[in-house]
Amino acid sequence: MRLYNRENILRVVNSPDIISVIEKAFQSYSDKTVQSGTVVHLAFTDPPGDFHIKSAHLAGAPVFVVKMASSFYENPSRGVPSSNGIMMVFDAATGHPEGVLLDEGALTDMRTAIAGAVAARLIAPANPERLGVIGSGTQARVQAEWIARVLGIRDVQIWARDMEKASTLATTLSENGLSATPQASMEALCADCDLVVTTTPSRTPLITKAMIRPGLRVVAIGTDTPGKQEVSDEVMAAADAILVDSFDQCSEYGDTASALARGIVDRERIQEIGQALNNAFCLNLPPEAIAVADLTGIGALDAAIAEFAFHQLTARTV
Amino acid sequence: MRLYNRENILRVVNSPDIISVIEKAFQSYSDKTVQSGTVVHLAFTDPPGDFHIKSAHLAGAPVFVVKMASSFYENPSRGVPSSNGIMMVFDAATGHPEGVLLDEGALTDMRTAIAGAVAARLIAPANPERLGVIGSGTQARVQAEWIARVLGIRDVQIWARDMEKASTLATTLSENGLSATPQASMEALCADCDLVVTTTPSRTPLITKAMIRPGLRVVAIGTDTPGKQEVSDEVMAAADAILVDSFDQCSEYGDTASALARGIVDRERIQEIGQALNNAFCLNLPPEAIAVADLTGIGALDAAIAEFAFHQLTARTV
Repeated sequence: MRLYNRENILRVVNSPDIISVIEKAFQSYSDKTVQSGTVVHLAFTDPPGDFHIKSAHLAGAPVFVVKMASSFYENPSRGVPSSNGIMMVFDAATGHPEGVLLDEGALTDMRTAIAGAVAARLIAPANPERLGVIGSGTQARVQAEWIARVLGIRDVQIWARDMEKASTLATTLSENGLSATPQASMEALCADCDLVVTTTPSRTPLITKAMIRPGLRVVAIGTDTPGKQEVSDEVMAAADAILVDSFDQCSEYGDTASALARGIVDRERIQEIGQALNNAFCLNLPPEAIAVADLTGIGALDAAIAEFAFHQLTARTV
Repeated sequence: MRLYNRENILRVVNSPDIISVIEKAFQSYSDKTVQSGTVVHLAFTDPPGDFHIKSAHLAGAPVFVVKMASSFYENPSRGVPSSNGIMMVFDAATGHPEGVLLDEGALTDMRTAIAGAVAARLIAPANPERLGVIGSGTQARVQAEWIARVLGIRDVQIWARDMEKASTLATTLSENGLSATPQASMEALCADCDLVVTTTPSRTPLITKAMIRPGLRVVAIGTDTPGKQEVSDEVMAAADAILVDSFDQCSEYGDTASALARGIVDRERIQEIGQALNNAFCLNLPPEAIAVADLTGIGALDAAIAEFAFHQLTARTV
């Protein structure tokens, strides 16, 4: 049994190979060669918190993975982070526990960011110059970093409900080699940027029909549980192409679910990211096409990034 | 984050307090103050194996627990045990991981044995002298040890399909202070013993109506998943009292389920162990009463024993 901390793990996963690891996990998921366990949810009230267990085995992989993740909302007032996570790696030939990845949620943050970047590359227009970011939390930062890296973008605009936080994030990103500035409104952001990524826990749509223009591309990350929505039903209905990480999950929640339930979205326009990647890295949409990628988070990506991390870590210590 | 191995863990749980810990978990379960996560099952085919995740939080407990347990059937041919298990302990106030109990399944074996002993005490006749054990595996051994300890019994008879294994177990138990002998048939075992415990993975009933007599008491441990059955429907129908660990689970599988579905068991005769313990440690049945305790295994007991172990371990290392 081996135990690795966040620092060990981040050192090995920051590799150019990680993008293809995530792409292959999307493809395996859409090819239905991933065995995923039922998602477990424990709800705590005093103090309030949510705890989830996701588990998955990618066919042929030497290990399978159980991820346990928590969000306890009063933690910051106790001086500890609200979110945390741990992944357990098991030998798929014997069932024996092999390793504990004490990543504190970093692997989830990273696989979500890379998933966003992979989706962004699929729907991005040719030669994108400016990325718009909505939100100012961890995902706002890592999506900006990974999308900019994968698409070769340098200019980033940020809008957040709290503009002070948007400014702070702009400073952070600028210190890390991007040219980032706060933007005064979502309308201006959608008008100026080639691609917009949404990273909020919003429960009312942020991107509405009035904000969209021909050629707008949106990667929607925040909507991961029932009740949340970042992109309005009318925008989903106006989209020429919709990418989803999981058709099953996005039919139940995610930004697509409500428009799909109302029957205003053509199912033919919806495609899973894994299916799209089976054809090409890029959808090659016409310049004026509107496209949305709707990500809800799938256990297959957790299993893939944990397997990659564990393999790198054990190869180094043998 | 603290990590403890099997040896550390077994040292601290071997305490007289552990029985009341298990009793309280039964009571909490029946009082519906336990939050239990959906049970996750991953099925492997190449090589064949089963993997389960159980999770639970006992109301008011400072920690909650996730148990991951595996049975990979070809492991012995690779020189490793077929079953394994690990328990993760989380802080119920912050959701943060606090400890890894690398018990290799020992805590599950132990909580199952103590659950059997608690059930045995509830249904045992006055002054029991002889315990019958059906089976020869780990649970046969630990049930014999714990039931003998809790009821003050010294004489043990053992029947198993493989009588060589029954003899080996008799020798092992005799070396540990009991007077244990193999018994030639289940009929003779049921006739001679005050209390019988069944610990097999049988898929056809072992204890049938022809074997029972007034006053027989049976603790049925082996039937923990659909398809298994150790006690026949007719024996269940003849029982004056039936104890179950979980009415919900024992209605779906367990030895009670099929007789209950056939409508030949009076629901009024069925009681949860936790409900019974709310009244007394012993049901005080009339001497001629037939009684069966049907255990399927509940996550509340995993959470209780892991919490106890973790508390003892951390108290020692502070």
